[in-house]
Amino acid sequence: MRILGIDPGTHHMGIGLVEDDGGAVRCLHFEVISADSRLPLPERLRDIHARLAAVIEAWKPDAAAVEEPFAAKNIRAAIAVGQAEAVAMLAAAQRNLPITTYAPAQIKRAVTDYGGSSKEQVQEMVRILLVLPQTPTEPDAADALAVALCHHAAYRVQQLTSRARS
Amino acid sequence: MRILGIDPGTHHMGIGLVEDDGGAVRCLHFEVISADSRLPLPERLRDIHARLAAVIEAWKPDAAAVEEPFAAKNIRAAIAVGQAEAVAMLAAAQRNLPITTYAPAQIKRAVTDYGGSSKEQVQEMVRILLVLPQTPTEPDAADALAVALCHHAAYRVQQLTSRARS
Repeated sequence: MRILGIDPGTHHMGIGLVEDDGGAVRCLHFEVISADSRLPLPERLRDIHARLAAVIEAWKPDAAAVEEPFAAKNIRAAIAVGQAEAVAMLAAAQRNLPITTYAPAQIKRAVTDYGGSSKEQVQEMVRILLVLPQTPTEPDAADALAVALCHHAAYRVQQLTSRARS
Repeated sequence: MRILGIDPGTHHMGIGLVEDDGGAVRCLHFEVISADSRLPLPERLRDIHARLAAVIEAWKPDAAAVEEPFAAKNIRAAIAVGQAEAVAMLAAAQRNLPITTYAPAQIKRAVTDYGGSSKEQVQEMVRILLVLPQTPTEPDAADALAVALCHHAAYRVQQLTSRARS
C-alpha cells in the first residue's frame, strides 16, 4: 500500500509518499513542487499539474490523500484553495487513484492524537513516525507526509475492522 | 481570430466559440459540458477537463476568455468556483492559449453597454449580435458566448488602438 499525500497550493504543492509493506510505514519520498511565481496563474497551475502527474507516474501510488483547506480567511483565499485542490484532484483522478480528503483537525488527530496540536508538533510526530533523521525543512512537505500518514491510519482501521467482521 | 469563451462550473461548464474572419463576428459552436452528478468531485473535474480539452483540440481557438466568478456567496461556493476555474485554465494553458478572465460586469457592459443588465438582456444581445435564430436554451452556453464576445470587443479595441498608434 503506497499512499501519496498532497498539501495543495497554487504556488507550492507539498508531496509526501509513504509505504506500508505489511511492516512499519516508511517514507519513500517527499518534495515541494514550486511554480515560478512570475508566471500567470494558468501557467502556474499547468506546471504544477505536470510535475504532480510526473510524480504519480514515477512512484505509482495506490491511493491519494489530499489535505482539505484550513478554513479560508476570505473569498479570494477560498478561490485559490479550490484552484489548488482541483489541480491535485485532477492529476490523481487522471491516474484513476482513489482520492480521500482530510480536514486539518483529522490529520492532527491521526498523527498526534490531538486535533488541536500545533504545526510544529505535527511535524515532529511525522519525523518520529517515519523515523526521519530530521523534519523536512519545507513545512508543505511535512504536511503532505502528515496527510499520507492520516490516510494510512484510516486504512489500518478499515483493515482491522473488516478482519474482525470476517 | 477564433475565441473560446468559458463559463466554468464543477457540474456544468458552458462553452462558446466565436470567430472574427475580418467581417462580422459569428458563432461557430456552443455547448454545455455536464458531468455525471453521481460521480465524486475528482472524477467530475477529470471528465469536464477531458471534454474541454477535446473541444479545444477540435476547434483550435486562438485565445480563451474565462468568466470570473460572480462574487461567491460563501467560502464553500468560492472553493467550488476556484475548482471550476482551475479546470478551465488548465485545459487552455495546456494548449498554450492566451487566457483572459473577465468579471461579470465587464461582460455585461461589453455585450449590452450596461454593467447592470439582467441575465435575460445579456442572452438576448448574444442572440442579436451573433444572429442566432434563438437564444441558446442552456444559459451557461449563452454566458460562454457572452464572455467570448466580451473578449472579441476588447481585442477590437486593442487592434484599433494599435492601428491608430502606428
